[in-house]
Amino acid sequence: MSESSNNNINASSPNNNNASDKSNEAGKRKQQSKFKGGNTIDVEPIAGTRDFLPNEMREREWLFSKFHETSKLFGFEPYDAPILEMEDLYKRKGGEEIVQQMYNFKEKSDLNVALRPEMTPSLARLILKNRKILTLPLKWYSIPQCWRYETTTRGRKREHYQWNCDIWGVPEVTGECELFSAIIHLFKLLGLTSEKVTLRFSSRKIIEDLLKVEFGLQLSEDKFKETCIIVDKMDKMEAEDVKKILVEKVPEISEEVALKLIKLMNFKKLNPNEDYSGSKALTAFKEMLTNEEFKNGPVFKEIEEIFTLIGKNGYDIEDWIEFDPSIVRGLSYYTGVVFEAFATIEGLSRAICGGGRYDKILGTYGSKEQIPACGFGFGDCVILEILRELKLIPSYISSQKVDDFVIPFDTSFRPIAAKIVTYLRQKGRTADIYLKNPKKVGASFEYADKIGATRAIFVAPSEWNDGEKVKVKMLREKEDSATKEVTIKYTEL
Amino acid sequence: MSESSNNNINASSPNNNNASDKSNEAGKRKQQSKFKGGNTIDVEPIAGTRDFLPNEMREREWLFSKFHETSKLFGFEPYDAPILEMEDLYKRKGGEEIVQQMYNFKEKSDLNVALRPEMTPSLARLILKNRKILTLPLKWYSIPQCWRYETTTRGRKREHYQWNCDIWGVPEVTGECELFSAIIHLFKLLGLTSEKVTLRFSSRKIIEDLLKVEFGLQLSEDKFKETCIIVDKMDKMEAEDVKKILVEKVPEISEEVALKLIKLMNFKKLNPNEDYSGSKALTAFKEMLTNEEFKNGPVFKEIEEIFTLIGKNGYDIEDWIEFDPSIVRGLSYYTGVVFEAFATIEGLSRAICGGGRYDKILGTYGSKEQIPACGFGFGDCVILEILRELKLIPSYISSQKVDDFVIPFDTSFRPIAAKIVTYLRQKGRTADIYLKNPKKVGASFEYADKIGATRAIFVAPSEWNDGEKVKVKMLREKEDSATKEVTIKYTEL
Repeated sequence: MSESSNNNINASSPNNNNASDKSNEAGKRKQQSKFKGGNTIDVEPIAGTRDFLPNEMREREWLFSKFHETSKLFGFEPYDAPILEMEDLYKRKGGEEIVQQMYNFKEKSDLNVALRPEMTPSLARLILKNRKILTLPLKWYSIPQCWRYETTTRGRKREHYQWNCDIWGVPEVTGECELFSAIIHLFKLLGLTSEKVTLRFSSRKIIEDLLKVEFGLQLSEDKFKETCIIVDKMDKMEAEDVKKILVEKVPEISEEVALKLIKLMNFKKLNPNEDYSGSKALTAFKEMLTNEEFKNGPVFKEIEEIFTLIGKNGYDIEDWIEFDPSIVRGLSYYTGVVFEAFATIEGLSRAICGGGRYDKILGTYGSKEQIPACGFGFGDCVILEILRELKLIPSYISSQKVDDFVIPFDTSFRPIAAKIVTYLRQKGRTADIYLKNPKKVGASFEYADKIGATRAIFVAPSEWNDGEKVKVKMLREKEDSATKEVTIKYTEL
Repeated sequence: MSESSNNNINASSPNNNNASDKSNEAGKRKQQSKFKGGNTIDVEPIAGTRDFLPNEMREREWLFSKFHETSKLFGFEPYDAPILEMEDLYKRKGGEEIVQQMYNFKEKSDLNVALRPEMTPSLARLILKNRKILTLPLKWYSIPQCWRYETTTRGRKREHYQWNCDIWGVPEVTGECELFSAIIHLFKLLGLTSEKVTLRFSSRKIIEDLLKVEFGLQLSEDKFKETCIIVDKMDKMEAEDVKKILVEKVPEISEEVALKLIKLMNFKKLNPNEDYSGSKALTAFKEMLTNEEFKNGPVFKEIEEIFTLIGKNGYDIEDWIEFDPSIVRGLSYYTGVVFEAFATIEGLSRAICGGGRYDKILGTYGSKEQIPACGFGFGDCVILEILRELKLIPSYISSQKVDDFVIPFDTSFRPIAAKIVTYLRQKGRTADIYLKNPKKVGASFEYADKIGATRAIFVAPSEWNDGEKVKVKMLREKEDSATKEVTIKYTEL
């Protein structure tokens, strides 16, 4: 669910220059039609979008296979929805970036549609539509492509893929802990450690109760959502600016309260040398609060329950997880726990994924029934950047590998070569055949090399006429190996 | 490459009613905003698009896994391109349906873009862009989602997925035969037989030479393309209407020539009781021609070469393949062999996939270098409909399967249950945990049933305090089986 982070979609990956400086895209593209006059077409994809050549596609498939593997291991079921939805599905108040940057347009029959900015609204629509045939709880996952539109596209992507895992029908934090565990399972699968990545969490109920109980304010639901979205910008803006916007947009909040709020939520950053691992930050945070009822209330009970569940005698992932009240997340529908996994590598301190609890989303779509839900979105760009930086992408995935490559002696041997390659494929061996005119032996070897063939199989008259034999050359063995070259019957291949 | 057939994207699948009668979509949708006034949002996806619930998604994943498996076995490499491209990439003359029905729109910076109607133009763009780093021949595949827009959406889909395989850099029909073999490999993998499916092929060069050599006409390239696209409609229109349009749009063609042309190309249908299997239709067709130079020319040499390559001593797929001069295909860029696989099942005689040779596509994009290429597009809708009809979709894919399901005795046993489920997942077993309050045993069993668990593992005080043991219930064994229920240490699970 949700966009994994505001940073996520704009991650510019080092081996992808598509999204490089193209702020003048429209002007540039206008010249494009010149190819009709004899010049070549503009071969670049639309700014902010990516092509995937086979080596890049293998990398993507490798990452996605880890998403699938983790999801299935945890009992999440796959689902999908159209990339195009009605714009109304995404319209929300509160000034969310994701809504402001929607890739929406009017289609020919005048419908206002959008390329989905995130998956959660489609998921909610699916569940609402199929409510009667679905049994709760349900755990679903998907890897949708999500879009956004900005006028200034300087180095920012307009699309990314985003692994989404969601749990519906579980009101307790057992849901969030199961999500945490899935994320950390994936990190481990990718070779990451708790030194490189931290999952930080808090609860929207903390800021809600801070305002209500500590500061005695009564905000409407909309104003509360707006407050969260403003406070979420703390990471990217000066405290002074956040305070200004807060006081301006939410008049109920005074300058003094705004400052106190920001200071409380940001206390970890104000004490950068303190050890706040595990639940230490929770203790320190509670000490700063004055209202006993709040301190001993249900919000902190939930957070303590999380620490019990993720501890050594539970999921055993507490090394990866920190309480951090500065986590608020920039989506308006969150109602409880919110979280974000963050890379702690120098030069790459970026949000990798994020999510939270959204118990009231069905209500916003007009449903009388509310279903408790939580989930996360995990983009493909930042994680690949991190894995590249840490050299954790296995080199074997970068190039093609084929078991056998069949080369006919000349065009008259093509049918027999086809027969042999078919025989090999039926045996389950990945196999290719030289399709060009085999006159040039050098060219066929160059091709064998390109496709990463293990064996080259020559079909020539002298061997073939001697009992349907072929010459086999092992391309990955040393030149002087005795098994480097053998002649055998094709049915023994 | 190419759309697999004009029919393909509009296949309405029996278990999917999304695309049902919604011609009045816009009007209907206008009422949608009422949900803001308290009613529920319209839960339907946009007309002609599909949601995929887990059972439908598993079916799609199963089909796609066969596409991937076949592609990899044959040495095709994966690639991808953005679903959104510049509209200019698709604009072509000739009245192609695919161009007329483009899902195009103006985006915010005034660029004319389109949701891709087909993959071939993106592939050509990729190859043009990366020409210097690519070594030919290359064999690439992809499973893109393709879109189209029609104002009358009665029962027709606007999106489908389409398996694309393309071979670039091979000028000879060895390329086409490799494609045929991949398609038929997939058919076999899906459990289809040559009685249910036929691959029909011809060559655009036949109609080209018919016009030029038999009828002595000199058509421009554009007029020739237009002729092909009109003749392609023979299947859906009366011969008389095709003749009319042909004479009107291509004045060089007289009524007499048009009639002769249609009769020649349609001769198989005019003789429905004749046996035209294998190369018999080729012999019969040649007998109808008068010009010896044409009959003995390179076009028919190529077709004969195909029959040699696919024969018993080659790919051995000739039972599946027929020569059929009525195959022309509705895309303007084809230059040589064109083909279509067709279901021959009563009530389901529909095009499953289609493709051909397009040696001059780079030229249409302004490139000086031309690269010979051929490929096919194979949609997901028609094939799934056929497989459903023939009951060839294995039933095991329709529901979830999980190895283990861990149930805590009460909330105090949740951390231990989390520890056990983590242990099982680390062992590679798909495992789920009951996340709701375990008070109601019935509800947890209902959930175990829903997720298709093989074992239920109960974590309760009596067993756990006796050396960390758990009770295991085998959910798929008979009630009286001795192994139905055991109590073991959790590390022996």
